[in-house]
This record gives sequence, C-alpha cells and structure tokens, in this order.
Amino acid sequence: MTSLLVQPYHPRKDAIKITGIGLNDVALQVFQKTWFRNASKTKLLEFIDKLGFLLHTDPNMVNAGDMNGSGNLMDFLDEPFPDVGTYEDFHTIDWLREKSRDTDRHRKITSKSKESIWEFIKSLLDAWSGWVVMLLIGLLAGTLAGVIDLAVDWMTDLKEGVCLSAFWYSHEQCCWTSNETTFDDRDKCPQWQKWSELLVSQSEGASAYILNYFLYIMWALCFAFLAVSLVRVFAPYACGSGIPEIKTILSGFIIRGYLGKWTLLIKTVTLVLVVSSGLSLGKEGPLVHVACCCGNFFSSLFSKYSKNEGKRREVLSAAAAAGVSVAFGAPIGGVLFSLEEVSYYFPLKTLWRSFFAALVAAFTLRSINPFGNSRLVLFYVEYHTPWYMAELFPFILLGVFGGLWGTLFIRCNIAWCRRRKTTRLGKYPVLEVIVITAITAIVAYPNPYTRRSTSELISELFNDCGALESSQLCDYINDPNMTRPVDDIPDRPAGPGVYSAMWQLALALVFKIVITIFTFGMKIPSGLFIPSMAVGAMAGRMVGIGVEQLAYHHHDWIIFRNWCRPGADCVTPGLYAMVGAAACLGGVTRMTVSLVVIMFELTGGLEYIVPLMAAAVTSKWVADAFGKEGIYEAHIHLNGYPFLDVKDEFTHRTLATDVMRPRRGEAPLSVLTQDSMTVEDVETLIKETDYNGFPVVVSKDSERLIGFAQRRELILAIKNARQRQDGVVSNSIVYFTEDPPELPPNSPHPLKLRRILNLSPFTVTDHTPMETVVDIFRKLGLRQCLVTRSGRLLGIITKKDVLRHMAQMANQDPESIMFN
Amino acid sequence: MTSLLVQPYHPRKDAIKITGIGLNDVALQVFQKTWFRNASKTKLLEFIDKLGFLLHTDPNMVNAGDMNGSGNLMDFLDEPFPDVGTYEDFHTIDWLREKSRDTDRHRKITSKSKESIWEFIKSLLDAWSGWVVMLLIGLLAGTLAGVIDLAVDWMTDLKEGVCLSAFWYSHEQCCWTSNETTFDDRDKCPQWQKWSELLVSQSEGASAYILNYFLYIMWALCFAFLAVSLVRVFAPYACGSGIPEIKTILSGFIIRGYLGKWTLLIKTVTLVLVVSSGLSLGKEGPLVHVACCCGNFFSSLFSKYSKNEGKRREVLSAAAAAGVSVAFGAPIGGVLFSLEEVSYYFPLKTLWRSFFAALVAAFTLRSINPFGNSRLVLFYVEYHTPWYMAELFPFILLGVFGGLWGTLFIRCNIAWCRRRKTTRLGKYPVLEVIVITAITAIVAYPNPYTRRSTSELISELFNDCGALESSQLCDYINDPNMTRPVDDIPDRPAGPGVYSAMWQLALALVFKIVITIFTFGMKIPSGLFIPSMAVGAMAGRMVGIGVEQLAYHHHDWIIFRNWCRPGADCVTPGLYAMVGAAACLGGVTRMTVSLVVIMFELTGGLEYIVPLMAAAVTSKWVADAFGKEGIYEAHIHLNGYPFLDVKDEFTHRTLATDVMRPRRGEAPLSVLTQDSMTVEDVETLIKETDYNGFPVVVSKDSERLIGFAQRRELILAIKNARQRQDGVVSNSIVYFTEDPPELPPNSPHPLKLRRILNLSPFTVTDHTPMETVVDIFRKLGLRQCLVTRSGRLLGIITKKDVLRHMAQMANQDPESIMFN
Repeated sequence: MTSLLVQPYHPRKDAIKITGIGLNDVALQVFQKTWFRNASKTKLLEFIDKLGFLLHTDPNMVNAGDMNGSGNLMDFLDEPFPDVGTYEDFHTIDWLREKSRDTDRHRKITSKSKESIWEFIKSLLDAWSGWVVMLLIGLLAGTLAGVIDLAVDWMTDLKEGVCLSAFWYSHEQCCWTSNETTFDDRDKCPQWQKWSELLVSQSEGASAYILNYFLYIMWALCFAFLAVSLVRVFAPYACGSGIPEIKTILSGFIIRGYLGKWTLLIKTVTLVLVVSSGLSLGKEGPLVHVACCCGNFFSSLFSKYSKNEGKRREVLSAAAAAGVSVAFGAPIGGVLFSLEEVSYYFPLKTLWRSFFAALVAAFTLRSINPFGNSRLVLFYVEYHTPWYMAELFPFILLGVFGGLWGTLFIRCNIAWCRRRKTTRLGKYPVLEVIVITAITAIVAYPNPYTRRSTSELISELFNDCGALESSQLCDYINDPNMTRPVDDIPDRPAGPGVYSAMWQLALALVFKIVITIFTFGMKIPSGLFIPSMAVGAMAGRMVGIGVEQLAYHHHDWIIFRNWCRPGADCVTPGLYAMVGAAACLGGVTRMTVSLVVIMFELTGGLEYIVPLMAAAVTSKWVADAFGKEGIYEAHIHLNGYPFLDVKDEFTHRTLATDVMRPRRGEAPLSVLTQDSMTVEDVETLIKETDYNGFPVVVSKDSERLIGFAQRRELILAIKNARQRQDGVVSNSIVYFTEDPPELPPNSPHPLKLRRILNLSPFTVTDHTPMETVVDIFRKLGLRQCLVTRSGRLLGIITKKDVLRHMAQMANQDPESIMFN
Repeated sequence: MTSLLVQPYHPRKDAIKITGIGLNDVALQVFQKTWFRNASKTKLLEFIDKLGFLLHTDPNMVNAGDMNGSGNLMDFLDEPFPDVGTYEDFHTIDWLREKSRDTDRHRKITSKSKESIWEFIKSLLDAWSGWVVMLLIGLLAGTLAGVIDLAVDWMTDLKEGVCLSAFWYSHEQCCWTSNETTFDDRDKCPQWQKWSELLVSQSEGASAYILNYFLYIMWALCFAFLAVSLVRVFAPYACGSGIPEIKTILSGFIIRGYLGKWTLLIKTVTLVLVVSSGLSLGKEGPLVHVACCCGNFFSSLFSKYSKNEGKRREVLSAAAAAGVSVAFGAPIGGVLFSLEEVSYYFPLKTLWRSFFAALVAAFTLRSINPFGNSRLVLFYVEYHTPWYMAELFPFILLGVFGGLWGTLFIRCNIAWCRRRKTTRLGKYPVLEVIVITAITAIVAYPNPYTRRSTSELISELFNDCGALESSQLCDYINDPNMTRPVDDIPDRPAGPGVYSAMWQLALALVFKIVITIFTFGMKIPSGLFIPSMAVGAMAGRMVGIGVEQLAYHHHDWIIFRNWCRPGADCVTPGLYAMVGAAACLGGVTRMTVSLVVIMFELTGGLEYIVPLMAAAVTSKWVADAFGKEGIYEAHIHLNGYPFLDVKDEFTHRTLATDVMRPRRGEAPLSVLTQDSMTVEDVETLIKETDYNGFPVVVSKDSERLIGFAQRRELILAIKNARQRQDGVVSNSIVYFTEDPPELPPNSPHPLKLRRILNLSPFTVTDHTPMETVVDIFRKLGLRQCLVTRSGRLLGIITKKDVLRHMAQMANQDPESIMFN
C-alpha cells in the first residue's frame, strides 16, 4: 500500500488521481489482486476515495511537516538527512512548523495504530506520555524542593551552631527531639550548642559574641565561595534566577544547555549554598529554573517531546507551574503564574497538565514535610479579625510604596548589571560574590531580623500576635485583669520590645533595599521573590504597628470611631505585612492575578483578597507609571534576547513597508530562482550572506514568490547531494519546481530541492499595519514573514526586525536586540 | 497642523515627504510662520521628522482602521458615512479590524491628551472606563444574583405554604424570626402554615396531603406558564442556558438583541419563576447570561466598548466570569471558567479585569447574604477526616459514572432537541413546558428528595453527618456508651432512615436523569449545572454510604484493614457526593481546571483536590471516548453557529486549495478590478452575488491582488456617492487606485473608493496546509482569507468554508454550518 499515492481529498470525484511508481494502472492492478479480488475498478476507486482521508501523502506537503513522509519523488532526498528540522543555538524556532510536524507525527501514529495491537498499545503509550512526564516532573520537582528546604534549614543553622546529638539536625529539629525543651523556650536546649559554647565553652559575653560573629561570616564566605566556584566551573547557566531566560526559551528561542542536566545538578546544590550563606536572595525563582530543568530532562526521554521544540515548550510551561507550586505551596497560583508571567504558547491542554504537575509537586513536597507542619505553604497564616474599609487607605499607601520600591529596584539593578556587563567589574565574579557576602554577613549579624533566614523573618512578620507568641514583635503590655480566649486578643499598647523591634526593622529594611540591588544578578543562583517580600513585609509590619498604636491611643478620632472601640481587636499588623509583601512583589515582577492567587492560597481565605488586590493594583499602576517593564523583561532586554512580549501593545502607525528589508537604498533582497541557478550560485549566495533563509521566486524579473528555503536545510541538502548523489556537480541546475524539464543529454544531473522548499511561506502586503504584523508574529510564532505588493515580492521581515522596530518606536536602542 | 501630512516614519531622512493640500511649500511656510518663527527649513524638517512618530496619517492606512482619520483625499468620503464599521446581524466580526480600530482610537486620544488639561482628563477617564464598567457589572450581577436567590427561596416555599406573620418570608426566614422554634425542629413553627392548614385547618391526613399535592402542582404550573409566556412574548432569546450562544458571540459573532435589556429583564424574572416551579434545572448557566447582559448594557454606555465589537467582547468575557462567580461564590473558579470554557480572545488585561469583576460580584452577593450564612459559597462544606488511597477506586468509579451520564445526557438531549427542531413538536413550546412541569411536579412531590429545591438537596447530600444533623440521611445507630467531640463521629451502622433514604435517592436519581434530558432546551431559561451536580451527588452519596457500611461491617477485609480500624471515622459519604457531582458536571460540560477550582473554592481546602481531580479526569476521558463534544458545543452545532473551537485540533492533511472557492468547475471568483469597472458593473456584481466582500485585482488577466472590499461598505459608499456627490452616474468608472489617471473632459466624474479598500487582505498560498489555515483563522479571528499561487489570486476561504470543511472531515454534515 505504500506504493500507492492518493492525491489529497477533494470533494469531487474527478479530483482523485492515483499515482504509483510511474505506472498507475499497474499499481491499481496489484492492489486489486492483493486486496480486493473480483472488485470492479469503479468500486476500487470509490474505496480509494475514502482512503484518501487517511492517506494524504502529497509530496508537496512534505515541507510543511514530516520530512520522513513516503513521497515518491525518487530522488536522493527520500531518506531524511540528519539534523533536518533542528535549529541552531541562539536562534528562534518556527512555531507553525513545529506544530505541523507534531500533527504529522500524530497522524502517522493514529493511522499505524489500526494496523496491529502492538501499534495500538504504542499509540496509547504515546498519548499517555504527556501525563507520565507531568507525573515525573511533579515528583522530582517536589522532591528537590523538599531536599533544598531541608538542606537550607540545616546549613543556615550550621552558621550559628551545631546539634550534638546528631550533627545533621537543624536547630529546630535538634530541640524538637530533645526532651528537655520547655514549652516557654522552645529554641533553647542543651543538645544545640553555639560555636562559642562548643569551642570556648562560653555562651555569653563579648568574646563569645565576636567568635560567633566571626564564624558566622566565615561560614557564609565559605558557602558563597563554593557556590560561585561550582557555577563558574561546571554550569555557567546556573546563575541568576533563570526566569528571564525561561521566558525567552518558552517564547521560542534556543539556548542549548540552559536547561541541561549539569545546570540542574549545580543549580540545586549551589542554591542551597547561597541561600544558607545568608545573602539577600530567595530560592523561589531558581526553583522554577530547577523545575524546568527537570521538565527538559524528562521530555528528552520521550521522542514526542525531545524531537519537537514546540511540544517541549508545553512541558516546560507546566514545569514552571510545578516550580512555583513547590516554591510557595500554591498549585493554582503556580499555574496562573506560568500562564500570566512565563508562558508564551499555553493551550488549554497545557493548562490542565500544568495543574496536574503542580498538584503532584505540591503533594510530594507535603509528604516530605520539610517545614514540619504538614502544611503545603511556606507562610501559613490565620487571622482572626476582619479588615475594615478605613484600612484600605494604609493598604493603598503600601501599594504606592511597593510600586516605588519596584521602580527603584529595577532601575538601580539594571544600571548596576549594565555596569557589570560593560566595565571591568564583570571580570571578577568570584571576588564580587565574596565581597557582597562579606558585607551582607558583617552587617546582618548584629541585627536579629537580618541574621535569621529571610523566609523565617517573613513568616514572623506575617504572624498575628497570639497569646503564646514569644517574639519581640509581640511584646505588648497586657491588661492583667482580662482573660480572653487565645485567638481574640484586643489591641494593646506596645511594650519596649515592639519599639526596639521597630528600630531594628527600619535598619533591616534599609539594608535589604540596598543590598538586594547588588545581589540580584551576580553569578550565583538568586531569586527575587523572598527579598522583595521581605522588604514589603517589613514596611508593612511597621505601618501596621503604627496604625494599631494610633487606633489604640486615639480611638476617639473620627477615622477610628466607627470600627475600633476600646478593647476590640481591630488592627492586625500581620495582615499589613502580607499586603506590603504583595505590593513589593507586584512592583518588582508586575504580576497581578497570580500574585493575588498565591497570596490567597497562603492565607486560605477569600476574606483578605480585597486588601491584597488593592495593594497589588496600586503597586502595578505606580510602577507602570515609571516604566512598563518588570524586572524579568528588563533583564531580557539587558541581555538582548529576542522576546516578543504578549503583553506589550504596539500602537504605532507604521506599515510593513517601513520595517521590511531591504530598506530603500540597500542591496536588493537575496533570492533564489526556481529553475535557473546552479549549485555553485546557491553556494556562493549562502557564503556571501548570513540570512537564515531565502525566498524562492519564479524568476528575478517577475519576482513572483514560490516558496521559502531555510539556509540550514539548503546547506545540508547540497552537502548531502554532493556526497551521496552521482552527477551533482557545481554547475548542476537547482530545481525547486515540481517536474524539472527535459535536459539536453550531456548536461549535468540536476539537483531537485522541492522537498526542502516551504511552499506556504507567510506573506503580508506592504500596506499591512505593523500592529497587525506584530500580532501575527506573536500569535503564530513566526520566524520571518515575506512582504509583497500586488503579488510581487518586495522584502522580508524577521522577528529581529520586528523587535528592533519596536525598540526604536519605544525610543530604545534597536541594536540591543542581538539574536535572531 | 491638520493640513500637514507626514509620511509614515522611515528610519532614513530621505523618506520624509511633506504633502499639504497640493502645495507643500506653502504649507511649510504657513507652518513656519505660525509655529516656529525664524526657524530654518532644515530645523523645521527635523522637527517634522520627530513629529512623524505622532502624526502618521497616511491615507492608505485609513482602511486598516479609523474611518474618521484626517486624510486629504478631498473626495466625498472625507466624512464618514453612517454604519461603516458595523456588521450585519448573524455575521462574523473581523477581529483584526476591530483591534486596529481600537488602536487608532487609542492613538488619537493619546495624542489629543497632550493638547489641553480637559483632553488629558478625558483620556484618563477613557483609560479608567474599563475598570468602571467592571465595577458596575460586578455590582449589578451580584445584586441580581442575590435578588434571584431570595426570590427563588420565597417562591419555592410558596408552593407548600405561606408565612402568616409576613407573607414575603420564606419558610426558613419565617421560622427564624419566630420565637417559638425549638432547636430540635427548626422547620416547624406556628407562623408557617401549609396550604392545607390554612385552607381546611388540617395538617395531617390523606385529604390534606392531596390538597397540598394539588396546590403544589398548580403553583408549579402557574409559575411555568407565566415564565414561558413571558419568554415568548417579550424576549425569545431569554430561553435556554445561554452559554452556547455566549460562546459563539464571544468567538466573534453578532446576534443582535441576545444580550439586550429586555433579555436581561425577562431572563431574570423568568429564571426565578422556572427555578421556583421545581423543574429540573438550575440558575447557574442563565446567571452567566444575565451577567453578560449586564456587561453588554454597561459597555453600551462607553463609546470605547459600544463602538468596537472586539473590545465589547473583552467586557463580556469578564462578565461571564462575574456570572459564575456569583453562581457558585467562586471568583477564581469563575475567571478560570471564563478562560477555559467561554472566552475566545482572552488577553491578560482581561484576566485581571475579570478577576476584579468576579470579586466585586462575589462581595456584593455576600453583603446581600441571601443564604443567611455570611458565606460566599452555595454549598459550604467542612469535612473532618482525610481521604485514603484505597478510596480512589470508588472515586474513579464515580468518574466513570459521570462520564457515562454525560455522554448519555448529551446524546439523548441533542436527539430530543433535534426532534423538537425538525418535527411539529417545536410548534407548541408552551404546551411542552406545561406538560413537563406537570410531570415533574406530579412525580416529584411524593419523594422528599425531589420535592425540595435541587440546591437544597445537593447541600444536604454534600454535608457530613454531624451530631446535630437531623436529616434522614444521618439516621445512624449511635453507640450510647460513647461520648466524642461533635466533629469526630466514628463510622456507625446505618439505621432504617438511611435505608429508606437510599431507596428514595435511587428513585430520585432515575427520575432526575430522565426528566433533565427533556427539560434542558425548552423555551424557558434553564441551566444544567445544578441538575448534573444533583445526579452526581445522589449517585455519590449512595456509593459513599455503601462504602461506609462495607467498611463498618467488614473492617477486617484486606482493603479496609490498613486504614479503617473499628471506631474510627474513615469514610465521609458527603465527600463522595461532592466527587460524584464534580464527575457528572465534568462529563456534561467537559470542564476540567475550572471545575476543580470551583469545587476547591466550595470546600476551601487543598486536601480534597486529588479525589476531585481523579474523578474529573476519569469522567472527561470516559466521556471523550464517546464523543469529543461537550453539551455546549453540541448545542452550538445543533444551531449551526459558526464557532471555531480553540480546543479542537485539526489534524487532517488537506490543503488550502481543497477548501477554497471557487472549486474546480465552478464559476470563477467574483472580483473587482482596480480601474476598469463602472458603477453599474459593481452594482450588478453586488446584486447578482451574495458574497460579503470582493477581492480587488489589477486586471482580470493578471489576477494580481490589490486589496479587498467589503460588500456592506461598497453598497454604502455607492449609495452615499449617488446621493451626495455630483456627477457620479451609472457609467462612472470606479477607481481603487491611489491617483486616478487624467480622464477625457466629457467623461463622467469618477468614483474613488480607495478609502474603503482593505489594502492588507490576508493571503495564504494554495499549498498551505489547512491545519495552518485553521490556526490562522482561530488565532487572528479572520472572516476570510485569500488564496494565491505565485502571486496570482486563486480563490477565497471564508470562516464558513473552514467550518464546513472541518465538519466534513469529522464526518458531519457540512450544511449544518448555517451562518457566515
């Protein structure tokens, strides 16, 4: 049956044409004899008509997808040559082509599955492989997140002391297992010894303090040095948060090795080191990168994903969701983050699978239970009082603060990163890390709010002051005459602890703001979520305590009178901390829905969505007023990646003709003709230009477009033909037509290249508004688009051209877009 | 300045060309004198160069968007003629054009906003109008939902009796306000009187029962008759759930009046009537329709939305989210429902606004507090036991049941609706409603599980049996020796009440399954969520009780031994009911993520997501095995709407050439030529064909494409010209070129129509795979696409052609696609 070729289905009978290997009738007879004895020719044709649905194998279509199709061109290209359909490093993929290839694959498997039970099972396995990959990603990402959490916990405490009963226990675990812990002072137990106690048997006093201080710095430097060295030596791509690059990769760009196994390993290890070293960075962003590496690893096990860059990106989108899911214990928030922030092509099937991966990851993490509280979430909070309308004002103020901090951070950080990139500073990444770590450790140790790990700090700031809370922030003056249930404590005057905490928080806030700018972007894994949230939480808690005390001392003021009677619990400073954290995170990343949903999953109640939303919206508006770019987009631009943002709106009134190349005055477009160029001509053209592909026209005069040939495939095809096909020499004519004409007997063997020709290149007219062109590039994921006027080829627009034009229109340097 | 025209920006200087009204230099001089005294011409040119960014008013671009642009064609088309840019009823919109028009509007406002403070404020108001619309939609949708809930509550109870103290109180409110209610029997109080008590002073006995039965049926018939009459007389579009039509409208289709004010009013009123009448239908689907009507109403108040069909659909998407949000009290679920199920074009900005609208709606509903429990959600449940791995098996079984029920329901319902459409049955909608209501009431009354309202039933089925539960379903035999906390009751043997409840539930289940098939699709508002959930909840509760009793009586079986010790609370039948409800809803609607998220918001805990997901996935897979279409898609196809589903994958290997028209053997494509047809020729062409537009070519011989002219605009332009422009007669030549040639002196005045010409029509080559073409239609929202081969126009593909081809490929009747 493979020797039979049925033309694409056409509603009318006369369109059906059977072409065998030259001899239609012979093929038909063979077919008739083998399969349908005694069937009339008419019946047979009817049957083949129906078959036409299944067997569309028109050779012209090969270029649109499957290079392995069973065409009957009978030239050397019957067998695919290696590397066809792959892309070069730092190049853009063609989404349409990838999609088309996948459909072809799918079609082939479907038609094969009817042949035998084995093939049917194989097709089922193929259909299920997506779910299997998601399951594996979820399991691995959850496990890694759990391991990282445990290791960070242990190593952070290692900077201060060690557990004598088992050195691999963290402070909390050590004292938890100890029987001598009292309920009042859960943090103190004899098994846990500070370094000073262990080394000089002294737990108090100036010398013990200095020794602990010194060892704290040493451990931090040691961790940081190890981390930066590992990154430099083994996996340079493991640095940074990875989200800008993942966004770019998901939008259809190739960065080989960025999601490789080495990156996975080194990033996981160094992430533990840098977080433990006490630097002002978080593990949330890098966890997304780690999850994407897992996704890339598992997708390489299944040919469905490993051989198709488009399908692979669907897996990566889901992996990003799993990453956020384990970072915050927020599966729905993770999916929305992937949808809103990271992904580019997000079909509904991916939504569903992302959700699955995110859930599996979250449950894996929960069964590892690294926080020891059976909770999915990092900062679980429960508040006991509702919020009041009048509180919206401080919430909105926090939003403004978040937006301003976001803008400040992005501006300063980008300026510093640009400086690092362009000056000699960038040549000493190890030194830079050492210096920043040293400064961080030296400044952080004396202040209890910067000494502990940032996530613990956030957790404490979010917490409501219950009756059992021993934190300094909860040092209120209690009314001794009052006995109330544990969870309904009225507003009380602040004690000395709260006032000193306020000072320390203020100092910590300034320090965090400054140091984070220099930390993010160093050559170590570094996330931004936790430091941003810490900044916001500190500011929020301070505002919250301020409002609380104001309300307590002045509850007769008109703004408080309506909702805050004396003896009532009206202000929850923890909620202010949470709102502040959301505002700052929103200001830096410009997330909106996913941010609110993540926060919603943290608190678990719809009650507090309105304050969070008010702050997030305000923060985004304020930050957008100073510049539309979030930190990730800013880093993408800094690195010159070709990222066509779905969110940007192109509103300028330019036309395709203004953007296309060649510009007026430039050399004419390099084109191939369909039947008049020799192999040598083509080779010269390839050598002299560096375009990624060439339009093929009928002739140089008519300029009527036939198709488009990729540079990479042209080179491969010619190389292949020269090696394997006799008679193809430098002055062989290259034919892109369906049937080359009869040649004179002594002319060299022609080279037929129709199979590598894309017969359906995308075209727009020169009058098409750029707005529409940008939309087409975005939505269809094109690499290039040809420009015509009344049927004549005028020029070409590539993704790079589009991006450069957009940069120019936004008064940016168009040369900043570096890749194609 | 309006007399100055600067060519579109071009990177090089020489591209700048200034064209005034004929006299460039004069214009320049005027400009120089008025604005820049003493500026050199070079400086002026430089300034204009910069201005070019702002002032792109190339007349060629007008067609791409703004018809009101200040071009200088100086022909009669300077002023826009009415109705340009609108669409006919039951036609498809062109998304690209709408988008382009909106960008133009935006650009104009932005450039104007720099002129004066007033304009600046106006531009701010314009930018904020989106949020204002969302706020209004949320408020109105929430209010309407609250009012509907309250009214339904009252009217449902009115069928059984009346409150003597205040007739507008429902049974619950009546007894709630009464002081004589005991805690044990909350449903009985002297103020509430059954009709029999009131009319014949008899509350028990056969005659009282018959009287109550009779009055119950009478009330139901009365409500249903009123509803169907109101729908027929005032708003025929108010019938059905509305979701299929809303999906179609959102995908870019015009159905005038479907979202009108009358529909809003009548649908709200009749929804109360039909739900109260006890028919097997819910209010959730129609609430989405009601919310969309609100959205349409408010968007008509702002010209930004009322004049742009694309922008209007963004508002409608958000309104749909608000509708689901109030239907279930699930704002996040609502947004995801809109994203997954309803919307077509869902940019991220819409995501954010939908979220806002959904939240406002939910909070409005909460402040109305129709359920009297301060909860946002309809069926709030709290379970006290976790689920166990072994329980996944019954959960998956429920998923299978849900899938089978979904398939059965869709098949039968569609068959019945088709019958209604094609036979005489459809001529008696009022009779049909009366008959079905009568049957429902007669059968439903004797069974307590069908007599009460369906949402109360679901609520009871979802509930866990606490110590205070008085329901028949909780009639377990208690161990008198045991005192345990209220919320941790161990599994107990079922009492006689549970067994009789099982029988009644089984009968109710069969009845619901049958009657829902006939109810959905009648000419009254009818939602499907609640009946589907009821079917699933009944089946689930029965399975749950079965598993519970099995585990109680056989806890030594190997499957129970590991997790269910005697005296433990291991099985929660309410959870089974919830899982069953999710499975059935999933089987019917094929929702996935949004379904799970809605259910998650109902329970408020991540704990039970895995069972829900297992059931939802199984249900979808089982149902998909029998047919890919959900109930909404099935109804869309039944009605022949041109809906191009984003979720469908087109995997056939056909080419554009197979689909385009004219087919081989058909008459050639009707085209216009750019400069050789007279007004009469054009009018004849318009009269003889019914195409929505015509390609414009250079000449009939060369077939080189210039642009595309819409039929509607051609007709309007010619009519306008004949009325308003002297000298345009039947044999005037129609010019689509930029500059018509000099005509002989006595020839009639030419008609210049370049302004209505779309100079950037979408083209594909004839070799483009249909897969790609379908993708383009979907993603760019095209109405039509032209097919070329090497620059020559071959044919045209419209959305209808694409849909018909897809139907043909799926072995469906292509003629079922009726609209364009």
